[in-house]
Amino acid sequence: MATLTLTTRDDTRPGADSAACCAPLAREPLTAEAATTLARTMKALADPARLRLLSLVASHEGGEACVCDLTEPLGLSQPTVSHHLKVLVDAGLLTREKRGVWAYYTLVTEAMNAVAAVLTAPSGRTSASTY
Amino acid sequence: MATLTLTTRDDTRPGADSAACCAPLAREPLTAEAATTLARTMKALADPARLRLLSLVASHEGGEACVCDLTEPLGLSQPTVSHHLKVLVDAGLLTREKRGVWAYYTLVTEAMNAVAAVLTAPSGRTSASTY
Repeated sequence: MATLTLTTRDDTRPGADSAACCAPLAREPLTAEAATTLARTMKALADPARLRLLSLVASHEGGEACVCDLTEPLGLSQPTVSHHLKVLVDAGLLTREKRGVWAYYTLVTEAMNAVAAVLTAPSGRTSASTY
Repeated sequence: MATLTLTTRDDTRPGADSAACCAPLAREPLTAEAATTLARTMKALADPARLRLLSLVASHEGGEACVCDLTEPLGLSQPTVSHHLKVLVDAGLLTREKRGVWAYYTLVTEAMNAVAAVLTAPSGRTSASTY
């Protein structure tokens, strides 16, 4: 699987560009296409086990973790954890690198930040943000 | 279902505090409870029509819109749009105010920003963000 290079975009993994495409959704109406792409990423995030996996991987020593590090804290079987990890890799939110017996997963911070940027309301738009 | 009161909030809308609870998920492991709550909000966001609705409402004149403003740009029936709006209100992402014949919807920017804050990777965590 290709290394992430979000700036030069030759990345063909599904979801990899999912959110990087879009201005903050509160600033201008999302196109149907952008909404479909973003919804796909949101779907990958819309699961408690997957959110915990992202969090465990990111906060693990060295910012990476293998399945062997993740099954116990989640209390799920290895096949289930592997399935969720695959969904997150397919969504472009984790990268996977095989080293020896295990595959190691790392958070794709650019992808997470891109999703966050789309959701963030531009400052000054509402009373809530002017205080 | 119990009302969430994770801060001092006297807000009883379901989901209103959904994301305000959590530190950035990349900083420390999400608890199972926080992950469940956040996943519920993500589920509300994991639909193209709902993402477009949030975007249309937020970018509409005055930052509010009624169903009458939303059916045409989405190309969906009024009952379908109303259903999606209800999901977003229940998730604490929109507020609804009845005025005369129509109900007017407004984006809850704090809720959107709270979700964004949980997803945002703390700066300096990875090589990606140092360059």
